[in-house]
Amino acid sequence: MNKPDLLTPKDLSTPALLLDEQRMMRNIARLAGHAAHLGVALRPHLKTAKSVEVARSLTGGGPGPITVSTLAEADVFHKAGYKDILYAVGIAPQKLERVQALRDRGCDLVVILDSATQAQAVAQANIPALIEIDSDGHRGGLRQNDPALIQIGRILHESGGLRGVMTHAGESYNVRGNAAHAEFAELERHAAVSSAEALRKAGLPCSVVSVGSTPTAHAARDLTGVTELRAGVYMFFDLVMAGIDVCAVDDIALSVLTTVIGHQPAKGWMMIDAGWMALSRDRGTAAQDVDQGYGLVCDEDGCILPDLIVSSANQEHGIVSLRPDAGGQVPELPVGTRLRILPNHACATAAQHGRYHVLPRDGGPLLTWNRFGGW
Amino acid sequence: MNKPDLLTPKDLSTPALLLDEQRMMRNIARLAGHAAHLGVALRPHLKTAKSVEVARSLTGGGPGPITVSTLAEADVFHKAGYKDILYAVGIAPQKLERVQALRDRGCDLVVILDSATQAQAVAQANIPALIEIDSDGHRGGLRQNDPALIQIGRILHESGGLRGVMTHAGESYNVRGNAAHAEFAELERHAAVSSAEALRKAGLPCSVVSVGSTPTAHAARDLTGVTELRAGVYMFFDLVMAGIDVCAVDDIALSVLTTVIGHQPAKGWMMIDAGWMALSRDRGTAAQDVDQGYGLVCDEDGCILPDLIVSSANQEHGIVSLRPDAGGQVPELPVGTRLRILPNHACATAAQHGRYHVLPRDGGPLLTWNRFGGW
Repeated sequence: MNKPDLLTPKDLSTPALLLDEQRMMRNIARLAGHAAHLGVALRPHLKTAKSVEVARSLTGGGPGPITVSTLAEADVFHKAGYKDILYAVGIAPQKLERVQALRDRGCDLVVILDSATQAQAVAQANIPALIEIDSDGHRGGLRQNDPALIQIGRILHESGGLRGVMTHAGESYNVRGNAAHAEFAELERHAAVSSAEALRKAGLPCSVVSVGSTPTAHAARDLTGVTELRAGVYMFFDLVMAGIDVCAVDDIALSVLTTVIGHQPAKGWMMIDAGWMALSRDRGTAAQDVDQGYGLVCDEDGCILPDLIVSSANQEHGIVSLRPDAGGQVPELPVGTRLRILPNHACATAAQHGRYHVLPRDGGPLLTWNRFGGW
Repeated sequence: MNKPDLLTPKDLSTPALLLDEQRMMRNIARLAGHAAHLGVALRPHLKTAKSVEVARSLTGGGPGPITVSTLAEADVFHKAGYKDILYAVGIAPQKLERVQALRDRGCDLVVILDSATQAQAVAQANIPALIEIDSDGHRGGLRQNDPALIQIGRILHESGGLRGVMTHAGESYNVRGNAAHAEFAELERHAAVSSAEALRKAGLPCSVVSVGSTPTAHAARDLTGVTELRAGVYMFFDLVMAGIDVCAVDDIALSVLTTVIGHQPAKGWMMIDAGWMALSRDRGTAAQDVDQGYGLVCDEDGCILPDLIVSSANQEHGIVSLRPDAGGQVPELPVGTRLRILPNHACATAAQHGRYHVLPRDGGPLLTWNRFGGW
């Protein structure tokens, strides 16, 4: 529940994770509007948020649809009123007992799989599933025209558990710009829809055709044949998403509040109390056009300090310096100065924290929204 | 407390963090023996462990000495009976109130600093401190012969809070082999001892001369003038430490238990349910002679599967493949097979988990030791 703390960021001990609710709500509205325009249901992925309050901001509360990446998420969100849940990581047979326990408590938890071995275990347990399709060579899933599709479909159908197909074009993170993402969105659509058609031609049902990733969800122009769209990091966004033009830096709703704890003036270094424990080890912008180090530095109100990045990180120390080849000078900020760091990867940075300190959109005192972890 | 769970690793849901107690105790005994041989006190750093049970394994229980990297650690370990605690991250003035609250409860919590601004705030609060010395250009601290040393020493001494000096040669992680680490150990010793002598020549007290990092602590040959040695990751070790010859791979006491959840045979990929959420994003071996990807793969009993690494990681998916240019073949391991992944960096991997599942040295059932996080 929202716990009013009667605090401002100045009262927080650093490092601390800040969430700008106004930006988050703007990001949520943007994709909700696009999905409505495309005529598909939106099934937000809650692996980034891991918070009941963020889930409610996304969906207005249960019953869903939502996507999760762990059974711990399924459990927490089911207890919070969600019932329509897709567990979007290839199922291990050992986990079916926990899946069944959730289903027995009234949760319509659906799993994904891409092999006959998994399908047999899932069918035996009478659990519904989507067949994962590989649309871009990124990770798991069946390639199109793989004869295993029909084989797996038949195994699942015999137990009445064949719900449909799903795909995720994770490679869309590695290209920049709306046109490139739209191509991946069409890859997703084509792979999923053609697999659905192949199942139907074989006399098998396929009511769910599920696609999505944050870049493709925003860029998709036509989702004919698709029934639902999934996306995860879009409610917060991050420097990786900004670096491929899915959002602007000003859309990033998460930051890490930190304090200056030292200087090495001869080196142009400022030490802060946010190291990789607070920022994560994620270096997702390293391969992008602009390498943001371990994060982009803002003042305590969130205004970007040009070309200043966290260039290096130890466990509880960050080193702030100018971006290589940047002009200008490191600003003189005494020990005790508060800064905010925008994260490379919201999923990874948020995972380092036990709670969000929420700057509410009404400008009132900070709220505390708990996060959870584990599996 | 130790909570007997009557489990074996086969009963665990994956991913899960395993701790081999026998290896840990061997690693603890090794450095304790070396410190005794050198005639210095050992002040273990608990930033890696963040567990009262591991602390007890290291020290036999309170009162210390121990080192911490957060005030949350100071708080938890003080409640568990530790009183002699060094908080080894440059102090932010805003944190002095929390430091004082711990001191008021009987904890001899000492802070570190490297500027007159910090020294004035610390002296005003009557809190004891060590002056941080930069022995290798790695991070914070005063370079030797910096006139600020005496200035800071005087400020601290006026309030009776000048305890001594400390240094940490973090650059020792970037060189390989005992001889190279011994050179960094001598850099640490020389920087700390000469700074202590400079303070004493100025008529200032300096009872504590504190040095250390895991590589230098193991390699130090003579610590004349040093009073205490600090080291952190040595109780667990990891692939980064093995890659610079501080330990053998067989000394690594931590691993992540995982399950095979899929295959892409055409690519030589096996998917596992340990992604970066379970392994961390740490790629500390990337710049070493042998890049271990996101971790080295073992069978469920801990036997290394040659040249098999986690080559790529998404949030809850790891991709296992052969090391580039390795001979041999990816073994055929069906969905459901259990594996163990040895971590690049024990501090980062352990931080992703809420508990250790301990394989006890007596061979009995698994124990559960809780970890904590936060600041």
